[in-house]
Amino acid sequence: MSPETPLLSRLRTVLPDHADVLHTDPETLAAHSRDAAPFSEAGTPAAVAFPRTAEHVQQIMRTAYELGVPVVPQGARTGLAGAANAVDGCVVLNTARMDRILEIDPANRLVRCEPGVVTKDLNDAVAEHGLSYPPDPASWETCTIGGNIATGAGGICCVKYGVTADYVLGLDVVLPDGRRMRTGRDTVKGVAGYDLTRLLIGSEGTLAVTVGATLGLRPVRPPALSLLAQFPTLVQAGEAVAAITAAGHVPSALELLDGATSQAVADHGHPLLEPGAAATLIVESDSAEPHRDLAAMTLLCKSAGAQHVVTAATAEESRRIIEARRLVTPALGAFAATLGGKPTAFIEDVAVPRSELAKFIGTIEEIARRHRLRIFTLGHAGDGNLHPTVVFDESDADEFRRAQLAYDDIMAAGLALGGTTTGEHGIGTLKREWLARELDPVSLDLQRGIKRLFDPENLLNPGKVVEA
Amino acid sequence: MSPETPLLSRLRTVLPDHADVLHTDPETLAAHSRDAAPFSEAGTPAAVAFPRTAEHVQQIMRTAYELGVPVVPQGARTGLAGAANAVDGCVVLNTARMDRILEIDPANRLVRCEPGVVTKDLNDAVAEHGLSYPPDPASWETCTIGGNIATGAGGICCVKYGVTADYVLGLDVVLPDGRRMRTGRDTVKGVAGYDLTRLLIGSEGTLAVTVGATLGLRPVRPPALSLLAQFPTLVQAGEAVAAITAAGHVPSALELLDGATSQAVADHGHPLLEPGAAATLIVESDSAEPHRDLAAMTLLCKSAGAQHVVTAATAEESRRIIEARRLVTPALGAFAATLGGKPTAFIEDVAVPRSELAKFIGTIEEIARRHRLRIFTLGHAGDGNLHPTVVFDESDADEFRRAQLAYDDIMAAGLALGGTTTGEHGIGTLKREWLARELDPVSLDLQRGIKRLFDPENLLNPGKVVEA
Repeated sequence: MSPETPLLSRLRTVLPDHADVLHTDPETLAAHSRDAAPFSEAGTPAAVAFPRTAEHVQQIMRTAYELGVPVVPQGARTGLAGAANAVDGCVVLNTARMDRILEIDPANRLVRCEPGVVTKDLNDAVAEHGLSYPPDPASWETCTIGGNIATGAGGICCVKYGVTADYVLGLDVVLPDGRRMRTGRDTVKGVAGYDLTRLLIGSEGTLAVTVGATLGLRPVRPPALSLLAQFPTLVQAGEAVAAITAAGHVPSALELLDGATSQAVADHGHPLLEPGAAATLIVESDSAEPHRDLAAMTLLCKSAGAQHVVTAATAEESRRIIEARRLVTPALGAFAATLGGKPTAFIEDVAVPRSELAKFIGTIEEIARRHRLRIFTLGHAGDGNLHPTVVFDESDADEFRRAQLAYDDIMAAGLALGGTTTGEHGIGTLKREWLARELDPVSLDLQRGIKRLFDPENLLNPGKVVEA
Repeated sequence: MSPETPLLSRLRTVLPDHADVLHTDPETLAAHSRDAAPFSEAGTPAAVAFPRTAEHVQQIMRTAYELGVPVVPQGARTGLAGAANAVDGCVVLNTARMDRILEIDPANRLVRCEPGVVTKDLNDAVAEHGLSYPPDPASWETCTIGGNIATGAGGICCVKYGVTADYVLGLDVVLPDGRRMRTGRDTVKGVAGYDLTRLLIGSEGTLAVTVGATLGLRPVRPPALSLLAQFPTLVQAGEAVAAITAAGHVPSALELLDGATSQAVADHGHPLLEPGAAATLIVESDSAEPHRDLAAMTLLCKSAGAQHVVTAATAEESRRIIEARRLVTPALGAFAATLGGKPTAFIEDVAVPRSELAKFIGTIEEIARRHRLRIFTLGHAGDGNLHPTVVFDESDADEFRRAQLAYDDIMAAGLALGGTTTGEHGIGTLKREWLARELDPVSLDLQRGIKRLFDPENLLNPGKVVEA
């Protein structure tokens, strides 16, 4: 039993089912103190709440607001920017148990659900009605819709199908003072008033807590086919991406692995990857004519100088190609295990204009050499969104310092190429200083004003994104 | 020469080229006092400014701000909600002459332009690079990109390709006090900070004035084919729309004409429309296999009970079908001319969930009977976005009163069916009271807060959308 602070005492009073909702044991507090971001500070919460209903959320937030206690919203903690990290003495408000799908409406191609629904579960449920919810962040088998909305999550297929924000029609949220608000609509189109829905998406839990969402759906995706192409130089891979784009193709995945990543996946035993390539492209098409489109894109890759191309003719062959992308994480894990000490993989998230892709990867390779680090770059080439991943020994103080310097150099290089410091992971605590470098100062000033408008006491997820 | 008020004197001082930029003759003031919305109040401006540069816009806004003079931004004045209507003594800031396309970037599929570029001109220019800018509001041959952004304009093809908001990557704007701000990015993806770009889109010139935009583009659209289907009952037409959706088709246009509109177009001489139908659907497909998809949709229309179907096999046959949609405006004009007095066409803009389409049109027909009015309903069936149009004699006081009552009844019916009072035209002055009925009161409160944050003196387009 934890000490009876005013916060806990009040929360137990307002939550009749507090034994189920409210947890203060050290294990739960520790397990819920941070998300998946490395390098990011995290405090110790006073309590972790697992509300079951919107009313629970309102009670908790109203109570915390009255007592001046910060609240940190949290989903599956798969975030990579520290936005779900606790601050000392806060209430962690974890909405993962609000996981009901409330209504699937095939006639209007929409679904209403609670924030804790896991992205894959949502997709499985709507698939039974011939529908799909396309956004596919890497963690889609465990992450929640609420977290996807908070971060404005992307994924692999967004090169064709768009990101989370493109699917959210309306939100049901609780404001920092406990008031509840609906935004958006049930219709496909609508322009009544300012777009608060979009303002909340990607606000990383700093403006309001999502307790419900209305999401647009699409017809189930047609069967896809894929190709894999390896190139002797990065520039040639960049030219293949440009040629595919220029020819008007809209692939459903257009992923790039740099030389280091290609080698790691080959070393990990993938049979289709040849050693020594400077870059690998994985291209998927789920168009009405995937055979025809893949054949055309195969020619474009060869014209750009591909040394090795595998074009799938069957679903099974496609699966094997896509497996190369899926193997990146275990392959980097295997590499990390050879490092000794405390190996860490620090994944970055910079987006540049598509035309700057090859130049940006070349710069990242220079940065790796300069700081004597292993950096593996992979990413969504079709969107110009790359995830350079520094794999290093965190217990080596000098290597740690060099990893941080490389991180800064990569972001500066991305901005210098007209890019953004975060394509899909968010600002959290990790990139607060970079936000100020990326944004127009007038914009930053207005962003702070918006934070003050929604959260005048700076109690909801303080210290994330912008300061009030 | 107009009287030398402090406003005009200061503006002439700060604008070296004031003879070109600043106009105060009564003809120009009168011509720029309102947009295309009927029933909407409009004042008389003190001056109309046609800035050529962002610096002009800043000078004008800074001067007006210092003197406490309201500014009303304006594009081509094709808006239908009064958002561009002057208020007494204001400066009308018309950005139509800032009409340069600054850069077309095929590699990154984007275009940078000034706000006064006409939507059709933009599309023609990017088409030379094999690209397209899909949003196609009815006025696309004359309306401007700045106005499209201000209203969040839709159109016919957005059932497949999305609305203006889906294409705006970044904005360059001037705030009420004259400060300039960039929002958004040049990359496809990005989640750095709150989404001010989306907040500005559809804000109808009440938060900032657009002086530049970065727009995403798509490959040029493939050739389309279309079909026309007429139904003996509205319910059957609604069922055909539902069946097309349920089968996973994504037509590039899915337009509906009710019985009155079908008859008016038939009376106007269109050869493909038969008399006596309760509804006409016009469906266009620009998929990779339009013949196949149209054949499938033809069967769905027949199964739903279509009495008369024309399925185009050639571009010329398609053109004739699409002509039926284009003829609606002249056909209603011809009908109006038979009314005598001062005939007016008052176009509404309500969106309902797609499944409520047939019920909503039936309700509109009841409303027409109740108020003894001729209401012609057409609209974007695939989006559930309808434009019931009351054609009446404005000089008949009783008919005018009945038209206003019908307008209120239609909006109430739309809201009752879970819809919105504006799918794509905006709030302007026309629907301010309805906005308060549609929005959650907490949301309305925050919307007012956002207006105060951007425009603390309530000088930019005051009285539109929400009051500060």
